[in-house]
Amino acid sequence: MDTSDIRIVLVEPSHPGNIGAVARAMKNMGLERLVLVNPRQFPHSEATARASGADDVLASARVVATVQEALAGCGFIVATTSRPRDQYFRVADVRDAAERVLQEARRAPAAVLFGSERAGLSNEQLEAAHLLIQIPASEAYQSLNLAMAVQIVAYELFRARGGVQIDTAPAAGPLADPVEMERLFEHLAQVLEEIDFRDRTQGGTHLMGRLRRLFQRAALDRNEVNILRGILTAIQSRRRRAGDGTERE
Amino acid sequence: MDTSDIRIVLVEPSHPGNIGAVARAMKNMGLERLVLVNPRQFPHSEATARASGADDVLASARVVATVQEALAGCGFIVATTSRPRDQYFRVADVRDAAERVLQEARRAPAAVLFGSERAGLSNEQLEAAHLLIQIPASEAYQSLNLAMAVQIVAYELFRARGGVQIDTAPAAGPLADPVEMERLFEHLAQVLEEIDFRDRTQGGTHLMGRLRRLFQRAALDRNEVNILRGILTAIQSRRRRAGDGTERE
Repeated sequence: MDTSDIRIVLVEPSHPGNIGAVARAMKNMGLERLVLVNPRQFPHSEATARASGADDVLASARVVATVQEALAGCGFIVATTSRPRDQYFRVADVRDAAERVLQEARRAPAAVLFGSERAGLSNEQLEAAHLLIQIPASEAYQSLNLAMAVQIVAYELFRARGGVQIDTAPAAGPLADPVEMERLFEHLAQVLEEIDFRDRTQGGTHLMGRLRRLFQRAALDRNEVNILRGILTAIQSRRRRAGDGTERE
Repeated sequence: MDTSDIRIVLVEPSHPGNIGAVARAMKNMGLERLVLVNPRQFPHSEATARASGADDVLASARVVATVQEALAGCGFIVATTSRPRDQYFRVADVRDAAERVLQEARRAPAAVLFGSERAGLSNEQLEAAHLLIQIPASEAYQSLNLAMAVQIVAYELFRARGGVQIDTAPAAGPLADPVEMERLFEHLAQVLEEIDFRDRTQGGTHLMGRLRRLFQRAALDRNEVNILRGILTAIQSRRRRAGDGTERE
């Protein structure tokens, strides 16, 4: 989906560094539309520094005077709150809410509102929202830094958008098949016997079982099996050469 | 579980502000054991400032000279990587890995390694890990700020620990039951008739259906139903008084 349909709105941010960090957090998670309501200092060198490679997001940030202007043209509005005090609001977990925000953003641009570092959002600002969201945090210290809160919301939106494409089994090639694994284990057992290494406890089966489990757990690819078998072969030929040497002595 | 069983290890962090932000991110997510390997500047006023309410985590941070010292006594070791370049490593999604880290931490302290802002972790350091994890991010800009990466890992660990206890239905009281809702809708229909408000399109059923759906979607509690019925009653008595007045004119 088009991520320009989701606006991140910072209401009266007081630290310019946070604005820059927010821009970076957004770009990292594929968001680009930043709106600043009455920022205390902006533009600012610290914002630029912390935006790092997201200077484009920072440069295209809109600065407006009121929350109403920031939300103009938006449909679904979400407000973040760190405090459970808002007893007449119902609050959703950020993860559960992310999917909803994406759905609503297909109808009209959605906005996520973040309050200022000190005060958060006022009750009046919360009432502009269709949904309040909260980021789960430790009771010992619930207040996340502003940019951190944006990072987590943006992360959950990114995940909900299906942005997770981690190559968990990279270029190392296909896993070794069971036949190759079996040959490896046979080879290993043979070498263990040749070097007189025996399981003291249960006559060998216990030891091989553990070794099998270990290598199965490591989910070896073919290349790795070949490397291990090469090592086993090298051990054998070394022993044979060493054996020759021993006989000569 | 005891969160002191999970260490966050920053390898050669260059910005003291990031160290402080990491301490705060940790405390927000219930982690407390921070280890700094050869930090460029520490202690530092900027670290203290950004730690905010997590000054205790910062104060108890261990500073060591090598990764080996940082990992002493640890069992399971996880390393973070932002680059998919490490082609002979298998990489897990941070969310999938969080549960595993918690399980392993029950056996022996676990560690999560984060590289320096510029270089990340070296291949040698990655090889110390049992598992590499990656935070999903936009291809346009994959490199998260160090403290942001810690925040997301800590957040996923917190969630995996079952730390999510958001009171999604707060003190506002139990939802109205179907009988109360039905009385509300009857009352509303009656008032609509009294004020001669009719659905122009489909003779009334369509309108009431829409209104029903609207109020059902809002999941009203009893108090809210009482408020709405009070309003309806007020409309009726106002009309009666107004009706009396009209008759008198």
